[in-house]
Amino acid sequence: MTRPLRVAIAGLGTVGGGVANVLLTRGAELAERAGRPLECIMVSARERTKKRAADVSSIAWADDVVSLAKSDADVVVELIGGEDGPARALVQSSLEAGKHVVTANKALLAYHGAQLAALAEERGVALRFEAAAAGGIPIVRALRESLIAYGIGAVRGILNGTCNFILTQMEASGRPFAEVLAEAQALGYAEADPTLDIGGGDTAHKLALLASLAFGIKPDLSNMTIQGIAHITPEDIAFAREFGCRIKLLGIARQTPHGIDQRVQPAMVKLGTPLADIEGAFNVVVADAGEAGPFFFEGRGAGEAPTASAVVADLVDIARGAVGPTFGRPARNLKSGNPAPANSRRSAFYLRFDVLDVPGVLAEIASRLAEGGVSIESMIQRGRAPGEPVAIVMVTHECSETGVAGALKVIVRSDKVLGDPCMIPMEAG
Amino acid sequence: MTRPLRVAIAGLGTVGGGVANVLLTRGAELAERAGRPLECIMVSARERTKKRAADVSSIAWADDVVSLAKSDADVVVELIGGEDGPARALVQSSLEAGKHVVTANKALLAYHGAQLAALAEERGVALRFEAAAAGGIPIVRALRESLIAYGIGAVRGILNGTCNFILTQMEASGRPFAEVLAEAQALGYAEADPTLDIGGGDTAHKLALLASLAFGIKPDLSNMTIQGIAHITPEDIAFAREFGCRIKLLGIARQTPHGIDQRVQPAMVKLGTPLADIEGAFNVVVADAGEAGPFFFEGRGAGEAPTASAVVADLVDIARGAVGPTFGRPARNLKSGNPAPANSRRSAFYLRFDVLDVPGVLAEIASRLAEGGVSIESMIQRGRAPGEPVAIVMVTHECSETGVAGALKVIVRSDKVLGDPCMIPMEAG
Repeated sequence: MTRPLRVAIAGLGTVGGGVANVLLTRGAELAERAGRPLECIMVSARERTKKRAADVSSIAWADDVVSLAKSDADVVVELIGGEDGPARALVQSSLEAGKHVVTANKALLAYHGAQLAALAEERGVALRFEAAAAGGIPIVRALRESLIAYGIGAVRGILNGTCNFILTQMEASGRPFAEVLAEAQALGYAEADPTLDIGGGDTAHKLALLASLAFGIKPDLSNMTIQGIAHITPEDIAFAREFGCRIKLLGIARQTPHGIDQRVQPAMVKLGTPLADIEGAFNVVVADAGEAGPFFFEGRGAGEAPTASAVVADLVDIARGAVGPTFGRPARNLKSGNPAPANSRRSAFYLRFDVLDVPGVLAEIASRLAEGGVSIESMIQRGRAPGEPVAIVMVTHECSETGVAGALKVIVRSDKVLGDPCMIPMEAG
Repeated sequence: MTRPLRVAIAGLGTVGGGVANVLLTRGAELAERAGRPLECIMVSARERTKKRAADVSSIAWADDVVSLAKSDADVVVELIGGEDGPARALVQSSLEAGKHVVTANKALLAYHGAQLAALAEERGVALRFEAAAAGGIPIVRALRESLIAYGIGAVRGILNGTCNFILTQMEASGRPFAEVLAEAQALGYAEADPTLDIGGGDTAHKLALLASLAFGIKPDLSNMTIQGIAHITPEDIAFAREFGCRIKLLGIARQTPHGIDQRVQPAMVKLGTPLADIEGAFNVVVADAGEAGPFFFEGRGAGEAPTASAVVADLVDIARGAVGPTFGRPARNLKSGNPAPANSRRSAFYLRFDVLDVPGVLAEIASRLAEGGVSIESMIQRGRAPGEPVAIVMVTHECSETGVAGALKVIVRSDKVLGDPCMIPMEAG
């Protein structure tokens, strides 16, 4: 058996502790699979004395996390997080020092992935990130290594467990977003500052990585439409049911005749499909793999064991000698952008208008939509409250997104329409 | 760029033609991903002059398929099929000649996998088989490389598209097995000799491979309970609906306190779960990956593109230099058997008895079941036909499989009971 792969772990939170635990307790099986032992030789975290699930007292400690790049480790596991700061400094300097890097840091790679991949390849080391997208689901490896023969038409998924948990709870309880969010925070399912999750940014980071693997492009947030879930109301969720749908926050990257369309937004998906039926903290990814047909991958998207499982798989891969390019193709060949223009997007849409229940309001909305080339497939106005606010919801036929958005800009100026209309595309599940 | 990986393809049916086509038409992208070109240098099949989807006229032809082992190829792709004969001779002699082998041959590996894996490792070459289980779904790679940190508790799946198609059609049409099978044969969804599919043998071959990857055991058909679907009636399918279930042919390999339980049999799975909801020619595999939670993989289980996709992924892997052990651990470490004894199996069961509608028949059945320690959760006897045959169906509480089977052996001797009772376990979906 060859010499051990020496591992240094930066960050000992939930995931880092889980990785340390697996290396300490399941070493024999991992060595059997890797063909050599994996040895955790050094760890670093913010607080040395904090109580942790993993007993790391037998492992050397570094006070300065970035100093792991100068350790004797063969591979540095970066579990600090954040697109800049110590995480970036550590990854950059570790690669420069000729060390392999395994990271769960989606933000870092979404912003700096192309540059870091080029650096890794230049130094002949691996930069692996299975844990950065969809937790334990091996979708990074699947896109990089398995679903390659026929190309990928689209990769779509529910990539943020916090949003999926909140939407699931809103549906189950009928309660509004803010209340359910507060409850999720109290339960530890949402962060104290939940902006990155509920605003769609976390999904966007993950989508950028999956799109890079699927389409051979650099991870690219600048050409992505990103919308969160804070504007979704219990009424929207209830109306979705009436249309046989469920509202999910989707990340979608799709090859179109006009370029690559990348977006994060709530969408209506038909009940009974994998995207609609995934509940709670689970993630799901659908890969349309050309003629090989769609593939569905489902599993836990976050948490200690799922994420540590992905990190350990990358470590064993490196121990076996796998040093392929980060995004599946040489970094120098990754293309920039080619984004599909917004006016090329077509879809059916769910629309909700909060209006005053006065004569003529529906006629006014319908006229403005018609002028924008938008025709209506079905409409619901439930209850009457003359002179009071009521909701009008409709589902359009397939139409241009810019056509709908243009009509809404005019409609919102009416004094019979209260607040911003809600516009949610229908998506295949 | 290093020198090409030279590929020889044995068998130019649907899958072989698909692989040749991908190598011929998508060479540039594959080379970019593999870091070197993949070149198809020789092909062989039974008939040279047959009309094929792939134009292989530019590729050298071998009349004797086994002679590919003596070709200049670096890797031989075996797509002949069958556990012995030329397929086995070719794989054996190719490995002996120090060539990598990629195969879709589940029967060959289920019977001879441990021996061939040992040979491959001894010669330092790869023996890869992603296409042998669940078509294009990258479950072999996932079990071998991704879901390893926490161990696997169970791997369960719908692995035979023919059976799933037949059961789906029986449910949709209400027609009996034999009629639907004949239709499936006419449509090309079932073979002229369908024994291997409908008898569960094909599922068993695939399950043996997944169990080996999951549990570190030699592929082992001798310790597997194998039952097909020919005895399932439209009544069973209709009754399943009344219990909120669907009947699926499952392959199940599970680590239990008593050993490893491996079986292929129709099971009742709750509607709304991934195992119940997969229809038609799709496959699904559920991997219970310890604390990392369950993972679900769904996709097309057969056909040109899905299967060729899996073969090509293995070829690109070999081109990149991956030569890990066939079943994820060194062949010499694969354990034999440790099968769970049949009397350790516990489950709830669906039971159908065709009986004469005469007084006392239910009391007689219930008494025999009670004597076997089997208690009944619910029972349906629909319709009355005094003196005529009727069906009594019941679902038991969880109980021992041998307890039920023992009671059925007594019950079947009654002159009020017609034919063999049907006994189907309930399984989590």
